[in-house]
Amino acid sequence: MAESYAELRPSSRLLLGPGPSPVDPRVLRAMSTPTLGHLDPEFLQIMNDTMELLRYVFQTDNQLTVPMPGTGSAGMETAMVNLVEPGDRAIICVNGLFGQRMVDVASRCGAEVIQVSAPWGQIIDPEDVKKALAQGGVKLVGIVHAETSTGVHQPLEEISRIVHDHGAWFAVDAVTSLGGIPVRVNEWGIDICYSGSQKCLSCPPGLAPVTLGPWAVEVLNKRKNKVQSWYLDLTMIQRYWTQERFYHHTAPVNMIYALREALRLIYEEGLEARFARHRLTSEALVAGLRAMGMEMAAQEGHRLVSLNAVRIPEGVDDLAVRKRLLQEFDIEIGGGLGDFKGKVWRIGLMGHGSRKKNVFAVLTALEVALAAQGHRFEHGAAVAAAEEVYQSISA
Amino acid sequence: MAESYAELRPSSRLLLGPGPSPVDPRVLRAMSTPTLGHLDPEFLQIMNDTMELLRYVFQTDNQLTVPMPGTGSAGMETAMVNLVEPGDRAIICVNGLFGQRMVDVASRCGAEVIQVSAPWGQIIDPEDVKKALAQGGVKLVGIVHAETSTGVHQPLEEISRIVHDHGAWFAVDAVTSLGGIPVRVNEWGIDICYSGSQKCLSCPPGLAPVTLGPWAVEVLNKRKNKVQSWYLDLTMIQRYWTQERFYHHTAPVNMIYALREALRLIYEEGLEARFARHRLTSEALVAGLRAMGMEMAAQEGHRLVSLNAVRIPEGVDDLAVRKRLLQEFDIEIGGGLGDFKGKVWRIGLMGHGSRKKNVFAVLTALEVALAAQGHRFEHGAAVAAAEEVYQSISA
Repeated sequence: MAESYAELRPSSRLLLGPGPSPVDPRVLRAMSTPTLGHLDPEFLQIMNDTMELLRYVFQTDNQLTVPMPGTGSAGMETAMVNLVEPGDRAIICVNGLFGQRMVDVASRCGAEVIQVSAPWGQIIDPEDVKKALAQGGVKLVGIVHAETSTGVHQPLEEISRIVHDHGAWFAVDAVTSLGGIPVRVNEWGIDICYSGSQKCLSCPPGLAPVTLGPWAVEVLNKRKNKVQSWYLDLTMIQRYWTQERFYHHTAPVNMIYALREALRLIYEEGLEARFARHRLTSEALVAGLRAMGMEMAAQEGHRLVSLNAVRIPEGVDDLAVRKRLLQEFDIEIGGGLGDFKGKVWRIGLMGHGSRKKNVFAVLTALEVALAAQGHRFEHGAAVAAAEEVYQSISA
Repeated sequence: MAESYAELRPSSRLLLGPGPSPVDPRVLRAMSTPTLGHLDPEFLQIMNDTMELLRYVFQTDNQLTVPMPGTGSAGMETAMVNLVEPGDRAIICVNGLFGQRMVDVASRCGAEVIQVSAPWGQIIDPEDVKKALAQGGVKLVGIVHAETSTGVHQPLEEISRIVHDHGAWFAVDAVTSLGGIPVRVNEWGIDICYSGSQKCLSCPPGLAPVTLGPWAVEVLNKRKNKVQSWYLDLTMIQRYWTQERFYHHTAPVNMIYALREALRLIYEEGLEARFARHRLTSEALVAGLRAMGMEMAAQEGHRLVSLNAVRIPEGVDDLAVRKRLLQEFDIEIGGGLGDFKGKVWRIGLMGHGSRKKNVFAVLTALEVALAAQGHRFEHGAAVAAAEEVYQSISA
């Protein structure tokens, strides 16, 4: 090992990848507030605030709405370990990496999984879900609202209706949607919904907000077997997040400070204003990318505004461009995963990061990097097209 | 919900309970460093530093030494889900709450658990472990090094020898020992050891350092079944913590900043100096408590210096005293759990919190609170006895 280790001094990156997203300085400051004990009466108030604010962003009145002590993937695992019992038949919709992951997680819980698939970049067809449900005996249907691997925004209302018509319950992955686009848990009849702190909530990674409706709570409390994960067992954790203050694990106190502050910022801005900001910023980015002759990867009409997947132009070196953006411009964008590896870039405009100056910064940097790669386009057209979007709004 | 939510402004507590422990301001500052992407090349260096520093505190050269993305209990779950397969026979030693928890966690992994017990406050007798192993077919023996619920410091060397003589592997819970008392993973032949960031490492709660020796890595990589927890699956996570940078979950970046800084502080102080500080501080506290006529709960010769469990004097109201310490002196100490509920206080002197001024602060506050409860003792004797310990050292 080294004789000594230097003080941290990382570069100031502009995080426009698939997450983590840029964090407001207020959140970083709140996170560094001196630690309280996890059973301190003052911490109870902070927990209560956090639950109320989470209900606001999930648009729900579900009592059991809490941040789980792990990153977004722990949210997915929370949904599956708590509500699936061995042998349960589950339909999982797969049109990207996170749907595939849900299949893996559900299978590890002993579910008998039926996959309903669509090509990467396409939405899941409600008719396909209906056909799969016709096999009978399905306990749950799981789906990803915002596929981070493809930039697809999945409509949920019709599928929710179909799922409930068949007496199944409905699990939704809102990791890349919550706080950036509407996630109407009550209105859409979502039984369990989970997210991550590090995307459109713009809090550092480390927490996974989850919310359970009355049906999910009933399924949970009527389980035949113990939840296979002690750490994520909501039958116990629900008793910590109430007046009972039942000791389970030591809550990640400072991360909860950070989440509360991130949620406070959302509450101050207002959900509708925040959604409009995300839509506008994405529209400007896409106009700029198209002006450079690039195409979006997601099915038209179902593009995700928080995570913009764009096809890498023919002949352009994926890694060289991303390296240049990082090294010369301090900008992180994401590469492709799975079927999209080497084929798309993923540009996140999430939470605090979804703003005009960032659109212009990434378009300008891409102009330089793409020109160097011999990609032909009208120089300056990207920024002009983006500005036109803003002008059309103010007109 | 409220019309608005106020800025965080918790009281400045002196955390002398069973955890979380006081955090050095340098750690809080490091934690609020702007977030890097979890695949950023600069973050790779931070990860490497963290692994090197963790090997230093675990006193090991185990390659697979990483902070898991959850609190200490996630460390326990990591050990069990990765190394236990359904039907494996496991001996778990139980002399307090965390041994009981290990039984629960191992059982949820499908282990056939044999309990070796000792009364709360006593150590586990190596002979009892030997007898249980004689039943044959035992894959693993799990034990708690520092029982946070009882303040018992369990010797490990003899048990480790017995375990390995029987061809089993050895799992150790070092949640309340790592960084406060010696945890010699290599020398003692521990196959898997885990801890939490929030005790003697004095980092906020949220991470669980784990280390796996060669045998454990072999058991892991030769599993017949998938690890039941996707989130804590080390077969995948080990590939993120190497040059491969295989994407698994989004690492809790800012928590890792904090842990690296907490470990840097330990490295600067030096392990031996740190252990000596923990011993001395505890000795002074215990001298003070005894001068007030109080008795320690742990078996003599096996007291844990990081977590001091003291019997509540006859006739004294547990809650009234703790409430007074918290409200009038901003001092948190812990109550008892399980068999010790209402019978002991647990006074943590861990990491940054293990220092003279804190011993004097808690003794002084206890003098006031105990006197008000009618407990009789010579006023001022506690502080004098503690000071005497310090004088005897400098003499």
